[in-house]
Amino acid sequence: MKTDLEIAQETKALNIQTIAEKLHIPEKELYLYGKDKAKVNLNYLSGLSEKRSHLILVTGISPTKAGEGKSTVTIGLADGLNAQGKKAMACLREPSMGPVFGLKGGATGGGYSQVIPMESINLHFTGDMHAITAANNLIAAMLDNSIYQGNPLNIDPEKVVWKRCLDMNDRTLREITIAQNKKVNGVERTDHFVITVASEIMAILCLATSLSDLQDRIGRCVLAYTMDGQPITVKQIQADGAATLLLKEALMPNLVQTLEGTPVFVHGGPFANIAHGCNSIVATKAALKLSDYVITEAGFGADLGAEKFLDIKCRMGNLKPSATVIVATIRALKFHGGAKVDQLEKEDLEALKKGVANLERHVKNLKNFGLPVVIANNRFASDTEAELEFLKIWTKEKNYPFALSEGWAKGSKGMQALVEQVLLALKQENRFKPIYEVSQSIEEKIETIAKKIYQAKSVIYSKQAQAAIQKMKENGWDQLAICMAKTPLSFSDDASLIGAPTGFDLHVQDILVSSGAGFLVVLTGSVMTMPGLPKEPAANRMGVDESGKSFGIF
Amino acid sequence: MKTDLEIAQETKALNIQTIAEKLHIPEKELYLYGKDKAKVNLNYLSGLSEKRSHLILVTGISPTKAGEGKSTVTIGLADGLNAQGKKAMACLREPSMGPVFGLKGGATGGGYSQVIPMESINLHFTGDMHAITAANNLIAAMLDNSIYQGNPLNIDPEKVVWKRCLDMNDRTLREITIAQNKKVNGVERTDHFVITVASEIMAILCLATSLSDLQDRIGRCVLAYTMDGQPITVKQIQADGAATLLLKEALMPNLVQTLEGTPVFVHGGPFANIAHGCNSIVATKAALKLSDYVITEAGFGADLGAEKFLDIKCRMGNLKPSATVIVATIRALKFHGGAKVDQLEKEDLEALKKGVANLERHVKNLKNFGLPVVIANNRFASDTEAELEFLKIWTKEKNYPFALSEGWAKGSKGMQALVEQVLLALKQENRFKPIYEVSQSIEEKIETIAKKIYQAKSVIYSKQAQAAIQKMKENGWDQLAICMAKTPLSFSDDASLIGAPTGFDLHVQDILVSSGAGFLVVLTGSVMTMPGLPKEPAANRMGVDESGKSFGIF
Repeated sequence: MKTDLEIAQETKALNIQTIAEKLHIPEKELYLYGKDKAKVNLNYLSGLSEKRSHLILVTGISPTKAGEGKSTVTIGLADGLNAQGKKAMACLREPSMGPVFGLKGGATGGGYSQVIPMESINLHFTGDMHAITAANNLIAAMLDNSIYQGNPLNIDPEKVVWKRCLDMNDRTLREITIAQNKKVNGVERTDHFVITVASEIMAILCLATSLSDLQDRIGRCVLAYTMDGQPITVKQIQADGAATLLLKEALMPNLVQTLEGTPVFVHGGPFANIAHGCNSIVATKAALKLSDYVITEAGFGADLGAEKFLDIKCRMGNLKPSATVIVATIRALKFHGGAKVDQLEKEDLEALKKGVANLERHVKNLKNFGLPVVIANNRFASDTEAELEFLKIWTKEKNYPFALSEGWAKGSKGMQALVEQVLLALKQENRFKPIYEVSQSIEEKIETIAKKIYQAKSVIYSKQAQAAIQKMKENGWDQLAICMAKTPLSFSDDASLIGAPTGFDLHVQDILVSSGAGFLVVLTGSVMTMPGLPKEPAANRMGVDESGKSFGIF
Repeated sequence: MKTDLEIAQETKALNIQTIAEKLHIPEKELYLYGKDKAKVNLNYLSGLSEKRSHLILVTGISPTKAGEGKSTVTIGLADGLNAQGKKAMACLREPSMGPVFGLKGGATGGGYSQVIPMESINLHFTGDMHAITAANNLIAAMLDNSIYQGNPLNIDPEKVVWKRCLDMNDRTLREITIAQNKKVNGVERTDHFVITVASEIMAILCLATSLSDLQDRIGRCVLAYTMDGQPITVKQIQADGAATLLLKEALMPNLVQTLEGTPVFVHGGPFANIAHGCNSIVATKAALKLSDYVITEAGFGADLGAEKFLDIKCRMGNLKPSATVIVATIRALKFHGGAKVDQLEKEDLEALKKGVANLERHVKNLKNFGLPVVIANNRFASDTEAELEFLKIWTKEKNYPFALSEGWAKGSKGMQALVEQVLLALKQENRFKPIYEVSQSIEEKIETIAKKIYQAKSVIYSKQAQAAIQKMKENGWDQLAICMAKTPLSFSDDASLIGAPTGFDLHVQDILVSSGAGFLVVLTGSVMTMPGLPKEPAANRMGVDESGKSFGIF
């Protein structure tokens, strides 16, 4: 069987100018990166008039660790719509490079539903991650420099909250001490690095609507607190201008293509736990002006990804989603019905019958947002006819629109049934509304999500969380949106509670502010913001031949 | 007076395809970065046939801290040759981003002898620095991961020599402790970051002649030593393939243009102390195939920069330099004659008369390499007529070819006198030969440089240096080239010995191996590999307006 990289490399990419022509983007508005990638001028995109296009969110059931193929479905759906003569494009997140060297596959779809050039997108791409790393670390260096150079802002070195970052899986940087031994090295303190996609700068890049909004948001980021507890922002250390300068290209959406020549914006990729897990607002808004159907995705399952897409991204970007697609694999449904991880390839109708409860709750949640829902079964070779038949009958009985999604094996040809269902869904009533109002109290907002989406019995706040809420109120940060950091593997904060658990308590451990992004991060457990490499890193097998062709990226 | 950025932004850049056409590079061999930058396909460049072109090195007298304008002279000379209908191009180093945010101006020339787009070249440019950072840090992460995952290579964590890097002036990362507190964070050890341009990967990128040579060199880099003192290389941790993959675009030369439309490769920029301080061999070799006159520069004064250019770069790249230009400013000559730093703008003929001794030694040294020499006075507004007249008479008496270089104020028009002198020099006899043979012993090589170039009385080795020499011999690293790390401000290792000192001892403190680069770094003092930011960083005043135009880069 061919690898994703082999399929991608066999495909002759169209010149990116040809892709841009499909969207009527004049060549002069492109900032080319080689022959098959381009950034698009932001002023040009802002100047386009809005039109009535459809924004379709691809989300998923509570995932297994393998991932259920949301990107593949997103890409396949855009290809499938174009194959029917519609004008469709996809908006995807850009992958973090660090995990590519570890275990994780690329984040550019798979099989015959891929975005190309896959090796470039998964590595340096157009340099956005590097620009975010640089902007983040310039702010860090300027902050520590201010402390070193007489500390005019009276910053408490023990209360620095801004972290340095690298786009690398490097566990040794999780807990470090900096500025040791000599006074000329600065003021010693403990610190840690996060992976670049976990930086608030990434979240901001994805939520900013213009260069000036980007600078304002960066300026608002809280870096540290003074000796008497007052927040210190990026603007106070005068780093907002230079950081924005470093991000001026990064804010422009990246245009690439699918294997079938469908235009795709791959732009921005924030963490889905401590951030909102969606591609950039500028890319999605631009796509809605450039095409009639925009297919996009959100991280993790619908309890996290879709909720944040709808409550954070759509609210901040003033976006009106049209419909949602929930990706459910037979494998993951069986897992939620109690099947063991190493038994997911075996037929197990009993587990499947139990596991659909997880799917059903996600469907109901999305309907509660007022949106039409379509269920897509991302088909795997191990799915049996009996299992597929069960799902077909179950969805029919429930009156849930349903279709197989076979883009991985067949490209757009395998997506026509899903395209039909999505087009029908777009004719349904749409009463979209976020699930909470930002004007509610912090506790009300958290409890709305916990009870309406997760079906938690109650929310328990730790002492630390209570103190954090108090601090947020004092600093005027209580009117921000809520960004839940919770395990994606369960509706609860306990990864072992599979299926559709009820009656559990949600434990809020702490609350952090991302004042530039505009949300409070509600921690219901520990979040790993710097991954490590596995025993046999994927990087061991990667390389490039003398002709410049890559190998070993999977 | 206009700033460099204002002059650069006023100039309408030609499309980079037009610049490529001047060199007869087909458009399909370009990898575009926007409209005014492109990388050139390495296989295409390798396939071009060699021709008898002239390689002209611009170097300088022992510099003051302000720099004497070598880049400006290099750019001006290329423009000046083109203005006479010659086919000339320049090869420059690419600037490190970190210092741009500190005090340092850009490294793209100045006034009317500049390379554009200056703001892009000084910041992310085509991402080469970021790629080097990523490759360097992937190797670091894989090394620490190998130690963490059972340490199969028996690496002594106390003997890790590979450093992480960032392209940022961040003093707090000079001395740090990593992997603290928890076993899951790795094995605790002290560490430090260097600025990216100080990474051996940068030196290697500049010395590699092909992708496979790049991979071989990376594979040879020494990372650490085992518990029983055996070196551990990148190849042993299987990181050479992935690191090369990360550098495959970075190895392609970057084509840009001067304000006057002269083609320029800006590619690679290693430190001039712990590395060799020249742009890449691939760029220089390509330029020699694409044009008739190639003007390039080397870091610091001729004792360091030219010596390394000739003994390291030309040797490894099999390059035959044709002539050298020594840049001397009246200001720096007066400094070497004893004038105080804050008095350099005042006329001081006595100091000037003494200071020319520094220039004369550099001239003689370059003649010892068998090369024609031209002296260029990079004119400053503060230079008086009497001072210029003195220099003119002195060079005439000595029979040293001499011309004013006024590219900063006048562009190519101000370079015609120097062009004439350079063209005459190219007709002179050229018996170029490196000053030492790599087959000599380590001590012989060091003493050759110390005595023939610096005029040291003798070389004193510390105990550590003696032990290092022994270790180098045991590991078979004694046949490598020599890369001196010495203060650029004096011929000696004591920055206060200005002018043309004699009778001093050169103190070798330690010797490090850069086995991938292929040289031994001979430390004659401490070398700062991670700069800090000043009290008022330049970044404080930088920014971008809503149209995307940068400001504050000087």
